[in-house]
Amino acid sequence: MPSPLAPLRPRLPLLDQLRDADAASLRGDLVAGLSTAVMLVPQAMAYAMLAGLPPIVGLYASTLPVAVYALLGTSRQLAVGPVAMVSLLVASGVGAVSSGDPGEVLGLAALLALMVGVLQAGMGFARLGFLVKFLSHPVIAGFTSAAALIIGLSQLQHLLGLDLPRSQLPHEILLAAASRMDGIEPLTVALSAASLALLVGLKRLAPRVPRFLVVVVLGSLAAWGLGLDARGVAVVGEVPGGLPGLALPTLDLEAARGLLPMALTIALVGFMESISVAKAFARGRRDGLDADQELVALGSANVVGAFFQAYPVTGGFSRTAVNAQAGARTGLAGLVTAGAVVLTLLFLTPLFASLPKAVLAAIIVSAVAGLVDLEEARHLWRVSRPDLGLMALTFVATLGLGIEEGILTGVLASLAWFVWRTSRPHVAILGRLPGGTVYRNVERYPEAVRDTGVLSLRVDAPLYFANTAFLLDTVLEALDEAGEVEALVLDCKGIGSIDAQGLDTLGELLDELREREVDLWLAGVRGPVRDALRASGLAERIGEERLVERVHEAVDARLYDDGPCLRVVIR
Amino acid sequence: MPSPLAPLRPRLPLLDQLRDADAASLRGDLVAGLSTAVMLVPQAMAYAMLAGLPPIVGLYASTLPVAVYALLGTSRQLAVGPVAMVSLLVASGVGAVSSGDPGEVLGLAALLALMVGVLQAGMGFARLGFLVKFLSHPVIAGFTSAAALIIGLSQLQHLLGLDLPRSQLPHEILLAAASRMDGIEPLTVALSAASLALLVGLKRLAPRVPRFLVVVVLGSLAAWGLGLDARGVAVVGEVPGGLPGLALPTLDLEAARGLLPMALTIALVGFMESISVAKAFARGRRDGLDADQELVALGSANVVGAFFQAYPVTGGFSRTAVNAQAGARTGLAGLVTAGAVVLTLLFLTPLFASLPKAVLAAIIVSAVAGLVDLEEARHLWRVSRPDLGLMALTFVATLGLGIEEGILTGVLASLAWFVWRTSRPHVAILGRLPGGTVYRNVERYPEAVRDTGVLSLRVDAPLYFANTAFLLDTVLEALDEAGEVEALVLDCKGIGSIDAQGLDTLGELLDELREREVDLWLAGVRGPVRDALRASGLAERIGEERLVERVHEAVDARLYDDGPCLRVVIR
Repeated sequence: MPSPLAPLRPRLPLLDQLRDADAASLRGDLVAGLSTAVMLVPQAMAYAMLAGLPPIVGLYASTLPVAVYALLGTSRQLAVGPVAMVSLLVASGVGAVSSGDPGEVLGLAALLALMVGVLQAGMGFARLGFLVKFLSHPVIAGFTSAAALIIGLSQLQHLLGLDLPRSQLPHEILLAAASRMDGIEPLTVALSAASLALLVGLKRLAPRVPRFLVVVVLGSLAAWGLGLDARGVAVVGEVPGGLPGLALPTLDLEAARGLLPMALTIALVGFMESISVAKAFARGRRDGLDADQELVALGSANVVGAFFQAYPVTGGFSRTAVNAQAGARTGLAGLVTAGAVVLTLLFLTPLFASLPKAVLAAIIVSAVAGLVDLEEARHLWRVSRPDLGLMALTFVATLGLGIEEGILTGVLASLAWFVWRTSRPHVAILGRLPGGTVYRNVERYPEAVRDTGVLSLRVDAPLYFANTAFLLDTVLEALDEAGEVEALVLDCKGIGSIDAQGLDTLGELLDELREREVDLWLAGVRGPVRDALRASGLAERIGEERLVERVHEAVDARLYDDGPCLRVVIR
Repeated sequence: MPSPLAPLRPRLPLLDQLRDADAASLRGDLVAGLSTAVMLVPQAMAYAMLAGLPPIVGLYASTLPVAVYALLGTSRQLAVGPVAMVSLLVASGVGAVSSGDPGEVLGLAALLALMVGVLQAGMGFARLGFLVKFLSHPVIAGFTSAAALIIGLSQLQHLLGLDLPRSQLPHEILLAAASRMDGIEPLTVALSAASLALLVGLKRLAPRVPRFLVVVVLGSLAAWGLGLDARGVAVVGEVPGGLPGLALPTLDLEAARGLLPMALTIALVGFMESISVAKAFARGRRDGLDADQELVALGSANVVGAFFQAYPVTGGFSRTAVNAQAGARTGLAGLVTAGAVVLTLLFLTPLFASLPKAVLAAIIVSAVAGLVDLEEARHLWRVSRPDLGLMALTFVATLGLGIEEGILTGVLASLAWFVWRTSRPHVAILGRLPGGTVYRNVERYPEAVRDTGVLSLRVDAPLYFANTAFLLDTVLEALDEAGEVEALVLDCKGIGSIDAQGLDTLGELLDELREREVDLWLAGVRGPVRDALRASGLAERIGEERLVERVHEAVDARLYDDGPCLRVVIR
């Protein structure tokens, strides 16, 4: 963990990676870069459409940003570019502030890329990469599942050939679709069904075939050969050739203010997706991955993209998998991918003119179908119901309230749940196992025997303001129920930290016990807690000799009075 | 701790309290009730003025609400009525939504009382009394200190005879006062100084003398005898005699919406002040105090008051101290107090006509001066700097941003600090103390010896989503640094709970260790965590025989291979 004050030096991790490159790794990078490009080109166009942008913007976002990440990123396999989740977020964010004018939408998407990039790079320089820790797995699973549903439904219009309102609320889309059933284009539906069937079939039967490219080629050929365009099937239409030009994003303070919450969401969600994927494919845990440098790399990619007609990008799972399998060893693979997309832009764009939008929609749907995470739900059902509840809450909030609201609800609820849980910690009454010095929870070990005249309790949580009152009440209640006791032994091994209010409460407990003529012993007090007890003078009030290591020492010391005991010197 | 689903039954705790009443306790209640009334009458008028209301409203709030609490409350000593903090909050809340029309202000104050009452009673029925736990002591101390300053400054206009704008931002008041220095009334200043000197002197030299009553009587006599009113000293003026009549609070949805945040703040802050005071004076910890019934009692008092021209009340510290010292044994003392205020309203109001406002302001200032909690700041400096930081942050935010904003900042910052702290838990490398089975942090116990071939670590925090990544990194880093090891022993006594992500992370750690051919042992896993390990199948993957009780068992079991060891059967 680097210190937050560690000096920031400009880094080009690609140079480090290339230091041990050889012919084999170069060939691996070349093959991997090309394989990834074959997947990236159709996906990039599809995801741009999902983001409410012309498909060409997806290709633009697959050139310079991909190259910039390749130079600055610390992952050797991560394939950066347009991804489904971020595209959905872009659609939602831009849709909320734009009037719908196509030119305006492009400028706003670029502005969003700029903001996301600045936020990510800023977080990287400020070493704020840890912020993504607050997105817990259940929250991510619930959010991703809901987003996958929303993405799928957003493609309904393209799959059915209907004109549906742009909405991220599922019931609105479904209601609108139901009321316009008679507008369904049979030819479009047939093409969608065929594309989906082909995608599913190829995935099952020939997973190595570049299925996205296959449906794009076959779909374009069919649409061109059968003149589907003239028969009502929506196609991509003329795609301008050539490389993206330098273009300023819309620099409008009002719009920027409106986009800020979404820029923050994309910066965090995009980074989180990216770093998770990068970690999953890193060989060995280290492999040079550095969360803060990753933020800088992604942020730079987005800032550069913002000035070259792109929209926000991040590292995606499926293309990274292809990249890694095909043998990517360094960021060079990314440079190859970007180069291949450049060649596509220069020479192949005329091929996409007759590409039906239904085919792109089928690509999107098949790509996100796997994101509905029933497996995680089943896992959580078995392992932790509260976590399943958090997943369900995030899922429902994302579908019902909206995308940003959903993820915010999930984050706040998971923090609140953690605080709530630690505010009512587990307190166990301890008894001694026969023939030894080991103390156990009497509820779990019926053979454990409670000492006469001594009540031993174990507290399993950090002692802090939200649980001090609960603990004091619980301890005194246990004392009332214990009847005649002369000593209370608190097993403190589970108390990892203590705040000022926790110290005050221990003081109150001490006063209360003095009044009842009950001695207080603390067993197994941890270093940081012991320091706090000393600093506050509580250790002295309790008596240093009553800070022992194990519960039995307190009990034995009492029994033998000042006789021999296994006391350990505490310091 | 009553179950949240325990049946709600109407209760009159006063009847229980009176069951063991005798002549002595009745006399105690009578004397205490009258002593409290002597203090309450001047304070109530002063605090009403602080709240921006006519002084008579303070007396109205000291009749029925006090009696209602006496019937329903579970504290035997708590003296309810207008208090400084809540009065300040009322001034702030009503000031924000009113146009300044005196009649409107009265209706809004009553509406606020109604809302506070409904919120408190609702929280009581819903058993939400625990919510006040999230107000930590440092936050309360910072907030109270800032509020005391704000209250003091708000009285500057009365003390100096100046006309100052109503503001809760200190710099605004000070700037306004500075620019109007030439408007200061010398006679008013002299009266203020005399009153303050008398209050301080009596408190020091004759603490048993009812000093508030003394300055009120002397101040009124002086003002009347010297005709100060005609010489520019502001007086209370004619006070309508008689009891408060039934009057509807302003029932305006727009106003209610505007008041809601403040109503919530008052409901929580008022309750918190009240329950803290009640606890401080309860004899023995139990004494019948019930937080949820307290909420119901305070809420009912406020609801009733709302319909009888009152404003929000709560239990206050100084009057409760007088009540307890004078011998209050039951709620009867409260009924006596209310009765005495009724008599005051019926017969004594003409006396207050010439009471100078400067005297009331002096009473307020002397009452809140002790609330600036330098003692707590000094205590926190010694005991816990981060808590001092939270206190300072709350203090500054309350002064700089405003009252509600300040308290909200404090609550959120204290929760964030707790989460941040647990997100980077203390991890200790353990070594064995010579000649025993005890393992200790090698940094604190230089004589503790690390086993060769085994790395033993202790984690001191609940394992949850915000710290899993940190822990995994820390553990693997320690493993890298440890060199050649064959086993990792995690001392889990400090892990009080684990969530789904914590389980996933343990699984990841297990995979990583398998790859490195390092065995994983867990020592002292707590019951709830063990249950989770079993439910997730992790216990089986690790191997039940590797869940041991103490670190040395794992180390010894390894050394003696399958030979004898002190293993304890885990269940």
